[in-house]
Amino acid sequence: MAERVVVVGGDAAGMSAASQAIRVAGSSGRELEVVALDRGHWTSYSACGIPYWVAGDVDGPEGLVARAPDEHRRNGIDVRMLTEAVAVDLDGRWVEVVDHDGGGRERLGFDQLVLATGAAPVAPDVPGADAAGVFGVQTLDDGDAVIRRLGTRPRRAVVVGAGYIGVEMAEALTRRGLAVTVVDQAPEPMTTLDPDLGRLVHDAMEGMGIGVVTGARVERFETRGDGGVRAVVTDAGTFDADIVVLGTGVRPATSLAREAGLPLGKSGGVRVDDGLRVPGHDGVWSAGDCVESYDRVSGTWVHVPLGTHANKQGRVLGTNLGGGDDRFPGVVRTAISKVCDLEIARTGLGEADAAAAGFDAVAVTTESTTTAGYFPGAAPMTVKMLAERSTGRLLGAQIVGRAGSAKRIDVCALALWNEMAVGDLAMTDLSYAPPFSPVWDPVQIAARRVADRV
Amino acid sequence: MAERVVVVGGDAAGMSAASQAIRVAGSSGRELEVVALDRGHWTSYSACGIPYWVAGDVDGPEGLVARAPDEHRRNGIDVRMLTEAVAVDLDGRWVEVVDHDGGGRERLGFDQLVLATGAAPVAPDVPGADAAGVFGVQTLDDGDAVIRRLGTRPRRAVVVGAGYIGVEMAEALTRRGLAVTVVDQAPEPMTTLDPDLGRLVHDAMEGMGIGVVTGARVERFETRGDGGVRAVVTDAGTFDADIVVLGTGVRPATSLAREAGLPLGKSGGVRVDDGLRVPGHDGVWSAGDCVESYDRVSGTWVHVPLGTHANKQGRVLGTNLGGGDDRFPGVVRTAISKVCDLEIARTGLGEADAAAAGFDAVAVTTESTTTAGYFPGAAPMTVKMLAERSTGRLLGAQIVGRAGSAKRIDVCALALWNEMAVGDLAMTDLSYAPPFSPVWDPVQIAARRVADRV
Repeated sequence: MAERVVVVGGDAAGMSAASQAIRVAGSSGRELEVVALDRGHWTSYSACGIPYWVAGDVDGPEGLVARAPDEHRRNGIDVRMLTEAVAVDLDGRWVEVVDHDGGGRERLGFDQLVLATGAAPVAPDVPGADAAGVFGVQTLDDGDAVIRRLGTRPRRAVVVGAGYIGVEMAEALTRRGLAVTVVDQAPEPMTTLDPDLGRLVHDAMEGMGIGVVTGARVERFETRGDGGVRAVVTDAGTFDADIVVLGTGVRPATSLAREAGLPLGKSGGVRVDDGLRVPGHDGVWSAGDCVESYDRVSGTWVHVPLGTHANKQGRVLGTNLGGGDDRFPGVVRTAISKVCDLEIARTGLGEADAAAAGFDAVAVTTESTTTAGYFPGAAPMTVKMLAERSTGRLLGAQIVGRAGSAKRIDVCALALWNEMAVGDLAMTDLSYAPPFSPVWDPVQIAARRVADRV
Repeated sequence: MAERVVVVGGDAAGMSAASQAIRVAGSSGRELEVVALDRGHWTSYSACGIPYWVAGDVDGPEGLVARAPDEHRRNGIDVRMLTEAVAVDLDGRWVEVVDHDGGGRERLGFDQLVLATGAAPVAPDVPGADAAGVFGVQTLDDGDAVIRRLGTRPRRAVVVGAGYIGVEMAEALTRRGLAVTVVDQAPEPMTTLDPDLGRLVHDAMEGMGIGVVTGARVERFETRGDGGVRAVVTDAGTFDADIVVLGTGVRPATSLAREAGLPLGKSGGVRVDDGLRVPGHDGVWSAGDCVESYDRVSGTWVHVPLGTHANKQGRVLGTNLGGGDDRFPGVVRTAISKVCDLEIARTGLGEADAAAAGFDAVAVTTESTTTAGYFPGAAPMTVKMLAERSTGRLLGAQIVGRAGSAKRIDVCALALWNEMAVGDLAMTDLSYAPPFSPVWDPVQIAARRVADRV
């Protein structure tokens, strides 16, 4: 008889896991019945694409769907939409599910359980946070709600939180013609960068006409008579808003896991081994934005909710569940973004992370250009690089610059992955031609300068 | 008393070596007198920029000069231009030099000798190869000659050789309004790529209006009554030409080294150790386009004339000569180029290289896009990747695609450098956001597909 696999969550991690499990099981002769549940309307979509849908670059929501429920069904997955898992009994081996369409409620037995419940926006715990017109941006349904609000022709937007989602949504709303103010508690935007590089983002955003208010704590959201949001009140002033977007981060959506007694890490994410199994719980798996990942640089477990990890973890999980053997080797915390034509990227540890992880780090910031300096369109780019003082080992890098800058972070990510010293990175054989790089790639200039200091 | 260092050749390798030697000697208390000779008019220039100067993108020749003779003089280097070293006596420790300006000839003693004599274009050994209007493109003086010829308003150009310089010059001359035909002996352009990827370049060049004639051997250059070139005669037809550019490759310019009895490798390049010393010859050094470099993938010594290596080798040489300690760790044969909006890159071994080096290789070619497929401007890119069948070790990669494709080769170069397996590369933490990449980077899609086959 086929083993039943219940997958809770129909986005990247869950559906990658489901698809890969069927594929691998098929070739290993194992028989699986895979049921995938999602409480929303969409499977396998790019939540990262929502800002570009809001900006009007992309037709959504269908345009952001990599694989729709019916495609998954044709691949043999029993996909049930608008279906929410509300409880798990690990001993009884069942999930209690609610059908938000038909209204039914049932117990669904499983042999193998995959929790891919993702992450949920963190709303500031202040009055008015649930007002109409205040939006998180995590699911296509969220994106749809923002788009509908834009149909009411709002003029002023406030984005709370200046991380990746915040700056991307600030660009999107600016391009839709709104006057946008971004407020953030931190001294500079993009706290995944060190403040000196965050300052470059700050200046560039102001140059694009986006208001940036830092060091500002939100105290409450004021509403109109109809309950809709009217203003964001902070300790640094009140900002009128017809629409508010929350870019205040996400946390792992692990209430099911917690109630079922699964192990959670400090961040609240599910603890998994490198095969995406939940330790101590046979036949229970988890992947994607709801789990913690091993940070290869600091040696700690961290919550890094990104589609790239969700896809890779889902695939590894599916391979193992299907009878194969694969492992997810961890992360180095690489991330990339843009706000208008400013590109932003980071990998590894920043100065504060490095100190917290106990490293004595040397940091150097260098200015260079994306192409040979004499080449038309040569654009400025700033690279900050950190290395361990005693060994020269690369610890992290951050890049802020114009078109052609940010994807270079991948070289730093791969150097981190291989625990290279900055002096060695400086001498590697990276590509050079005038339209693509100065003769010393900016990453190598940075590496050389840091190497001179360790 | 100061040791005298004579540097022969005033471009990247020679002048990097000279500058770094003075810098390092200064901090180590060593006293050096550095004399640098060049037979041309320019020091420290970007020969790679010549096609962009010809195209009109860049003002030349000054715009391509990173550091002029007077700047080097201010740093304490005795730079002598239009001065050619014509003989070396290693036992007598002198170089015979001819002053092409004043006309003098003298013996210049040295304690340390640096040969940075570069490479010279290989002209086809056929009648008429020395006709007026037939140009190599190796020095700024060559570039200047091409520019002057363009002042005579030629209409038809033939480029002989479809390697990097050939395709770049084909673009440049097309953009100057000439009708351009590229002829090459090989079955496809860009023999640094495998023929299947070369075919993509072929098709794209034809799409840009450039004539591409492959499998054609040049038999002679026909001249007019005034001695100027009139046509290129090949075994595949005769092509009228008012100007001919040779992109038939370069060879190490090592006549001085050979006559002095220095060891040369198979390619004709000077053999050096990883400190850029010439083995068996105390106080004799060499770097740049005239030396062989160690190929870390095949374990052989190869001639890779590129500014990026010349700069790095010059710096390492200078550090060691100045009393420091550094090493040049070799190459993986990374290269990048473009023709109009088509980007081309390679690293490591192609199929023929891999077979020649004794590897049993698996090769897979994948199609992907530069950004998320739904993102506006998502451009096609093709990645071919090779791995060793028994171990999965990455052996090489080739990329052909539109804007944003080619610089991704650096990830492959760094993976090769660290001897990564393709399965491991597929799981590394590369950056992802929709404007920059699909959720699986094209390099990782390729790596995953190869990994599935090993």
